[in-house]
Amino acid sequence: RVDGARLWESLMEMAQIGATPAGGCNRQALTDEDRQGRDLFARWCGEIGCEIRMDKMGNIFARRAGSEELPPVMTGSHLDTQPTGGKFDGVYGVLAGLEVLRTLEQNQIKTRAPLEVVVWTNEEGARFSPAMIGSGVWAGEFSLEYGHTRTDKAGRTIGAELQRIGYLGDMPAEAQPVTAAFEAHIEQGPILEKQEQVIGVVTGVQGIRWYDVTFHGTPCHAGPTPMEDRRDPVQALSLLCEKLYAQVKAFSVDARMTCGDLRAEPGSRNTVPEKVVLALDLRHPQPEGLEHLHQSLQQLVKEVERATGTRIEVREEWHSPPVAFNEDCIAAVDRAVRALGYSHRKMVSGAGHDSVYVSRVAPVSMIFVPCAGGLSHNEAESAEARHLEAGCNVLLQAMLDRAGV
Amino acid sequence: RVDGARLWESLMEMAQIGATPAGGCNRQALTDEDRQGRDLFARWCGEIGCEIRMDKMGNIFARRAGSEELPPVMTGSHLDTQPTGGKFDGVYGVLAGLEVLRTLEQNQIKTRAPLEVVVWTNEEGARFSPAMIGSGVWAGEFSLEYGHTRTDKAGRTIGAELQRIGYLGDMPAEAQPVTAAFEAHIEQGPILEKQEQVIGVVTGVQGIRWYDVTFHGTPCHAGPTPMEDRRDPVQALSLLCEKLYAQVKAFSVDARMTCGDLRAEPGSRNTVPEKVVLALDLRHPQPEGLEHLHQSLQQLVKEVERATGTRIEVREEWHSPPVAFNEDCIAAVDRAVRALGYSHRKMVSGAGHDSVYVSRVAPVSMIFVPCAGGLSHNEAESAEARHLEAGCNVLLQAMLDRAGV
Ligand SMILES: NC(=O)NCCC(=O)O
Ligand SMILES: NC(=O)NCCC(=O)O
Repeated sequence: RVDGARLWESLMEMAQIGATPAGGCNRQALTDEDRQGRDLFARWCGEIGCEIRMDKMGNIFARRAGSEELPPVMTGSHLDTQPTGGKFDGVYGVLAGLEVLRTLEQNQIKTRAPLEVVVWTNEEGARFSPAMIGSGVWAGEFSLEYGHTRTDKAGRTIGAELQRIGYLGDMPAEAQPVTAAFEAHIEQGPILEKQEQVIGVVTGVQGIRWYDVTFHGTPCHAGPTPMEDRRDPVQALSLLCEKLYAQVKAFSVDARMTCGDLRAEPGSRNTVPEKVVLALDLRHPQPEGLEHLHQSLQQLVKEVERATGTRIEVREEWHSPPVAFNEDCIAAVDRAVRALGYSHRKMVSGAGHDSVYVSRVAPVSMIFVPCAGGLSHNEAESAEARHLEAGCNVLLQAMLDRAGV
Repeated sequence: RVDGARLWESLMEMAQIGATPAGGCNRQALTDEDRQGRDLFARWCGEIGCEIRMDKMGNIFARRAGSEELPPVMTGSHLDTQPTGGKFDGVYGVLAGLEVLRTLEQNQIKTRAPLEVVVWTNEEGARFSPAMIGSGVWAGEFSLEYGHTRTDKAGRTIGAELQRIGYLGDMPAEAQPVTAAFEAHIEQGPILEKQEQVIGVVTGVQGIRWYDVTFHGTPCHAGPTPMEDRRDPVQALSLLCEKLYAQVKAFSVDARMTCGDLRAEPGSRNTVPEKVVLALDLRHPQPEGLEHLHQSLQQLVKEVERATGTRIEVREEWHSPPVAFNEDCIAAVDRAVRALGYSHRKMVSGAGHDSVYVSRVAPVSMIFVPCAGGLSHNEAESAEARHLEAGCNVLLQAMLDRAGV
């Protein structure tokens, strides 16, 4: 069994890096805060004698040797956060992995296969789009060139920022054979809490499509220009959003639509904007459902173009289809939960995770624990120590199950 | 009669300062480009022997002495532009005034009252809100403290930027007695062009209200959070805009609504924004009409708050009530137009102008000329040399009318 108090203390120590006044964390990918978080993790791993390596995407691999030369059993997640991030999203998965290694070290337990805790780069997709880039390049979904050239809003690239913070590794960012992989995470939604269950046995991840939608209008003067002479991108934006929100909600209780970012150019109050750019996120657990949402968007774009005389450009930025995890790994988690006697349920993740890409090259599943009010990507994100400990115990058992003792 | 070719040449020379690839101007208030524009104007005034003074708001007064110690007859406008500005908005009024002085100088005509050409600071309201700040402080509508502390999006103040570009004058920014004032301007709307008229005799300016509307939501994760659990500020924004556009259009063909700027915070694609801020501009020629629009906004805000569970904060940033110009000045323009034989009509301005504030302390009216397609605050803004010359001839005659020869 893991040491829940030690896990909690490490979470709270990490949370001081990039701590916000409202009690959350702003430790965005490849910032100075991210570097401090990585340094702290590396120091902790060194203290228990792990070997640490880094690849060209800045993914960090901390390995505890096994008794045999087998492919490792992996676990891990990310240390980067949203700008209004919390203390647990991602960090919990990394530090739960560390706690597993600490527990084995303390009890001098040697596994057959080596164990590896991974910190994946830029999982959030907040500073650099898309999400899960570090694991995506490693798993072969994206090229290294693509990964290095993603830019933030200020135009800085991942490659340059990795170099700047000293985390551009030498190792190729390419998957090696893996025996099995697990990722512990807070649910980030309300289901476990509402149903008073401690563990979510995660069977897969819903599909995600990201779009940059650009509404092109004609700049003109706010005063003398008659309303009917205008091509107003804000009118187009509000009409499209109004209709799309309605269609998404009517389609299915499982469908999701989020407009996370908006910007008008040139952004002068008394000028109709030349353009408005919307960052749109659509999700659905089934491929057909996600395709339906995609078609609704395309259809409405045509309608709104006709109704407003504007031109609307839809660029798909990212498509992460629904993923089903590995049956053996799901079964290993299920056995661990039952052996430990925690209340549980099977569930599909609403959030994307590094496990999505890891699952392309290795058998994978995930372990969820409840978070308060289902709230995440919010500075008030919180989770109970006893739930975090329970999830970590499940992780320990599942990893031992696959690694062998 | 003025020299239309010389006027056109000066306009084209000024247009090179801050010229954009698309053929417009980006010479926003108190930037380096604005300084260059001011320097050029000052040099031109010096060449015809004008005395130049500057007040604490950076307003520039170029005076040609009269034969008597009378209050001056003023004209002028602004040299700052929108970010997607054209070559004529404001600049025409300043350089038409210069052309009047050049013409009198060339013909060695001495007026009884002195003539003054003024460059007002930050008329556009694009870089610093609100519009017409230089003339507003001078006329006593705003305090000097208020004027100096307005900030741009990067947090720089008017006071600091005036100092930086060397245009923080010594003279108090306070109105002195004025015999009469005129301002020549492109119409910035389609009426004169559609009706094939050369001169608009401007009888007043419609009312304007500016608002910062902040939609407060709750940040949460784009994936696992059910749609019905969200407080989404973009849903609130799109619902409010949809309904307000409809009400404004239904209310009156004279009503205007513009959403010139939009911003989401923190602006991360997979997080429902914490807030969205909208810069809103409402206009109507009648005080009751403008009040009606204001009430529609307040009413809809309540409805949308109820429908979306968000909180919506409406801060009024600026209110410029409808203005009626001085009868004698309107008559002087009317006489000049008739004497010169130009086709013309009376009209109300849809745009705010420095004359709005000047009219609080002096008898004022304005002279409009057509612009192509009624387009302004757009890099494609354009006007015909013959129309600009006609407006300048009207300005010359109206000024001589009030100043006496
Ligand atoms: N776990 C998590 O917050 N991932 C970010 C990627 C997503 O948008 O789902
Ligand atoms: N003339 C002009 O463009 N003025 C800007 C102030 C306004 O928004 O009307």
